[in-house]
Amino acid sequence: MTNIKTLSVDLGPLQGGRSYPIYIGSGLLEHAELLGRHIAGKQVVVVTNDTVAPLYLEKILVTLRSLAHIQRCETVTLPDGEQYKTLDVLNRIFDVLLDKHFDRSVTLVALGGGVIGDMTGFAAACYQRGVDFIQIPTTLLAQVDSSVGGKTGVNHPLGKNMIGAFHQPRCVIADIDTLNTLSDRELSAGIAEVIKYGLIGDAEFFDWLEANMDKLLARDAASLMVAVERSCVDKTQMVIADEREGGVRALLNLGHTFGHAIETGMGYGSWLHGEAVATGMCMAVRMSARRGWLSHADMVRAEALIQRANLPVRAPATLDAARFIELMGVDKKVKNGKIRLVLLKAIGEAIVTDDFAPALLTEVIDECRETC
Amino acid sequence: MTNIKTLSVDLGPLQGGRSYPIYIGSGLLEHAELLGRHIAGKQVVVVTNDTVAPLYLEKILVTLRSLAHIQRCETVTLPDGEQYKTLDVLNRIFDVLLDKHFDRSVTLVALGGGVIGDMTGFAAACYQRGVDFIQIPTTLLAQVDSSVGGKTGVNHPLGKNMIGAFHQPRCVIADIDTLNTLSDRELSAGIAEVIKYGLIGDAEFFDWLEANMDKLLARDAASLMVAVERSCVDKTQMVIADEREGGVRALLNLGHTFGHAIETGMGYGSWLHGEAVATGMCMAVRMSARRGWLSHADMVRAEALIQRANLPVRAPATLDAARFIELMGVDKKVKNGKIRLVLLKAIGEAIVTDDFAPALLTEVIDECRETC
Repeated sequence: MTNIKTLSVDLGPLQGGRSYPIYIGSGLLEHAELLGRHIAGKQVVVVTNDTVAPLYLEKILVTLRSLAHIQRCETVTLPDGEQYKTLDVLNRIFDVLLDKHFDRSVTLVALGGGVIGDMTGFAAACYQRGVDFIQIPTTLLAQVDSSVGGKTGVNHPLGKNMIGAFHQPRCVIADIDTLNTLSDRELSAGIAEVIKYGLIGDAEFFDWLEANMDKLLARDAASLMVAVERSCVDKTQMVIADEREGGVRALLNLGHTFGHAIETGMGYGSWLHGEAVATGMCMAVRMSARRGWLSHADMVRAEALIQRANLPVRAPATLDAARFIELMGVDKKVKNGKIRLVLLKAIGEAIVTDDFAPALLTEVIDECRETC
Repeated sequence: MTNIKTLSVDLGPLQGGRSYPIYIGSGLLEHAELLGRHIAGKQVVVVTNDTVAPLYLEKILVTLRSLAHIQRCETVTLPDGEQYKTLDVLNRIFDVLLDKHFDRSVTLVALGGGVIGDMTGFAAACYQRGVDFIQIPTTLLAQVDSSVGGKTGVNHPLGKNMIGAFHQPRCVIADIDTLNTLSDRELSAGIAEVIKYGLIGDAEFFDWLEANMDKLLARDAASLMVAVERSCVDKTQMVIADEREGGVRALLNLGHTFGHAIETGMGYGSWLHGEAVATGMCMAVRMSARRGWLSHADMVRAEALIQRANLPVRAPATLDAARFIELMGVDKKVKNGKIRLVLLKAIGEAIVTDDFAPALLTEVIDECRETC
């Protein structure tokens, strides 16, 4: 008997009042009934990448084929990596959908990490102006972050996630067994987002992470399950509170404006998203302390936990402050020309603010670069 | 004093309960207050094409520059034609938006025909997951059809409008003065959609069109105003009744499944959309008569009015029935493999149905080809 936790994401009228479940557990890829109950039509297209395909594609196809109501099942395998999260590669999904005559009743299944989830979700949002999709995140980052909240999209050479849509999945199936095949680096990248939930609004979870970081890094199943569930609960609450990011949802971007600058400046695919966010959180934490909001002790705790998770805490030396700020400028968090950042008042308490001197930003960037 | 008709499109909860006005009148491009009241931020990007730009771009820029709250105004001029309604060309809009650091508060203004409206609306739907846009349709087709209803998107080599989103404009400004620079062919293409409203649900309007077709073709301003307003009222009512095309909205596709086959089969840009729809309506009308639903007299009336509008009533000889049906197969109106068509029970009464023998479809296509 599999142990399944079910969270419900209840969306308000802005999203058509629809709600959908997030399932977290072990052995879920083989759970045909669970998958089948969220596929309305007879047609399925599984979108995955060339890293995940050898590991889990056949498993999910066996599960799909065991469902009596599924009559057609195709797969699209994209190259793995953030650098392929482009309009051009997205078009390959449309090529298959149209070449094989899939109509509006098709359900797309995203099998992979955040890139696959974002691209498949965006393809589902746009194909014939919107078809169903299901998220099966196979990385920790995707399980705790990108698969929850309905953000989908692709990158542009001039900015990350600049082209996209809000499109909610029919369900999210997070099988923690898939985390066993992650590299240590990918696991740590996912833990960055887990730490984020503690920092922005859940001090109790932050304490738990301090106590259980070694178990997470050792992939203890029970600990992973707690971390994924608590992260999804925290994110879901913020998404429900603010589906369109006017307010509280913006807090989820802690470290992201800094992080996006690193990702864009270094070229997509060189830093993992979670790594860039980890360094970005260190920068936001330091800025919060320098601004006089966060205590020195809490700054040290935050940086220490990020470092214990084997994540980078310093920005690349090659990006100087001027270039860094320029790269932050195209970020979506900019409103009418002024840079707004998520900063901390305490561990577990974040705000969105532009209440800081521009010079402070430059100083903090310089302090947080590798050469320093 | 300009004569302005204002229609209100009141959207239900599916679209966030938002409503927006459609303005129809003369001299509206110069009406700064009208435009200004629907631009929330300080930044505007006008998207147009190389046919419309020399005619109306400077005029709209003068109007925008006269607005005190607009601080930045850029333009993107795309090549004119349905063959440029692609993801690649769409990306040029994103290039400008990102290169010039436009943020989420930007308003895009679509100045042109249906292609510009669809692409600009889709760019607005996707840029940073959604920004405001305003429709300023400059063709009759765009004024009576594509600018109303929130459908946006681009074509794919394997199918028309296959990639897109629902995204409602802040307002639609239909200046009938712009119709004076349309070619006769473009004017007729727009009249095809006007006739459609009569056929699907407004027998009284059909009668009016029979009485006033010569005035419309002579571009009589008062008659054009009536035609645009009545078409927008008819379309708006259907869109409000059914924002997501589950039911009544599908009737707006009269002639479109046939028409899309012609457009795709002949290559985008060879037939105008309205021309393909005109021929498609003749095919639907003939099929309705052959099915025993529409009287012979009404079939003759419908074909005669389409012909009087200088529109094609026969499909190209080069597309045989098998190829034609294949091209119809990728259309969005297909549900689980069966072709559903909009057919007529009478002039002013349409239904969506798959209640016909496949052989009848083949016969009607053959009867309606130019060689016959």
